[in-house]
Amino acid sequence: MPRSASRSRSRTSATPRAARRPRVIWLYGLSGAGKSTLAAGLARRLRAGGVATMLLDGDVVRAGLNRDLGFSAADRAENIRRVAEVSRLFVQAGVSVVAAFITPTRALRELARGIVGAGAFVDVYVEASWATCQRRDPKGLYARAGRGEVRQFTGKDAPFEPPARTARVVNTEACTVTQALDRLQALVGPRRRARTRRAAR
Amino acid sequence: MPRSASRSRSRTSATPRAARRPRVIWLYGLSGAGKSTLAAGLARRLRAGGVATMLLDGDVVRAGLNRDLGFSAADRAENIRRVAEVSRLFVQAGVSVVAAFITPTRALRELARGIVGAGAFVDVYVEASWATCQRRDPKGLYARAGRGEVRQFTGKDAPFEPPARTARVVNTEACTVTQALDRLQALVGPRRRARTRRAAR
Repeated sequence: MPRSASRSRSRTSATPRAARRPRVIWLYGLSGAGKSTLAAGLARRLRAGGVATMLLDGDVVRAGLNRDLGFSAADRAENIRRVAEVSRLFVQAGVSVVAAFITPTRALRELARGIVGAGAFVDVYVEASWATCQRRDPKGLYARAGRGEVRQFTGKDAPFEPPARTARVVNTEACTVTQALDRLQALVGPRRRARTRRAAR
Repeated sequence: MPRSASRSRSRTSATPRAARRPRVIWLYGLSGAGKSTLAAGLARRLRAGGVATMLLDGDVVRAGLNRDLGFSAADRAENIRRVAEVSRLFVQAGVSVVAAFITPTRALRELARGIVGAGAFVDVYVEASWATCQRRDPKGLYARAGRGEVRQFTGKDAPFEPPARTARVVNTEACTVTQALDRLQALVGPRRRARTRRAAR
């Protein structure tokens, strides 16, 4: 293999410094709060900035890797455990992850942080009130839960624990998607270059 | 975000053509046949050639993502299913995978191929006789199995089904690691550039 010719084109050497320190941006919050929308938008922005990025969305993962899991407390924990382990593998491969999972309890958030490693884990609460999420109801889940067709629905008959006051929060109640994305990017921005941070303000 | 400045440095545009078509090289065979050694060597060579590559080794995965699984037939299938799903995620992220798993039955190999997708899946049988593997016994498993301390040991009290005659095979009985790696690289080489293929012969 002609190593000298191809080595200079390897991913690691061709990407900017920021891309060499992969991390896991973990968005949590109620169904309908805007996690998937923001995660997809953030992943797009990171990629556009030269950061190899994988989007892990709850619904997508539950259709593949975690298709055997339901919504009992034990299955929710296993869901988060596996996604955190997979995120860790991506970080090992040099790829950042944007994850969008309800992650309803503090214990589950700590489980994910412990597996990924605190140094690479950035969790952000995507906040919207129950009333707002119910009004948006992008998947019709609130309507179904209201009719008693969905069991263990987070915030209704399964707990959601808001984070401590010191948590990173993006509130999506009264802003556009672009505004929420700008806020999210500012929150997770410490590893971006100074010029980029100024532009985002 | 200054897109125009950073876009040209994105991973996709900076890597050679071969790296843009990620795939899963899946090595299977008896414990001790040389899967892990060859997988690590192949991953190193692919990375040196500019291909973003993740190594998924059975022992490592069983210490993390699949730590809840044993060696019953059902757990072996779940082990392979999850690794194939994770491999598919890596391919989606533009990262090739080199996987090293016993994958003892044809059904399990087909399970993995079906999840990854035939177009991206390249399976290679790492072949060595039971006697050779027993003599090497890198993890002391054959000795323990001989004393009855390991249950469901592949090739002893759990089945190993050799592949059809048309399968890709690297026999590690009578060659050096480098020779076996060269053979492996020639087998999985169709997507490398012509010049590289000639150099490997």
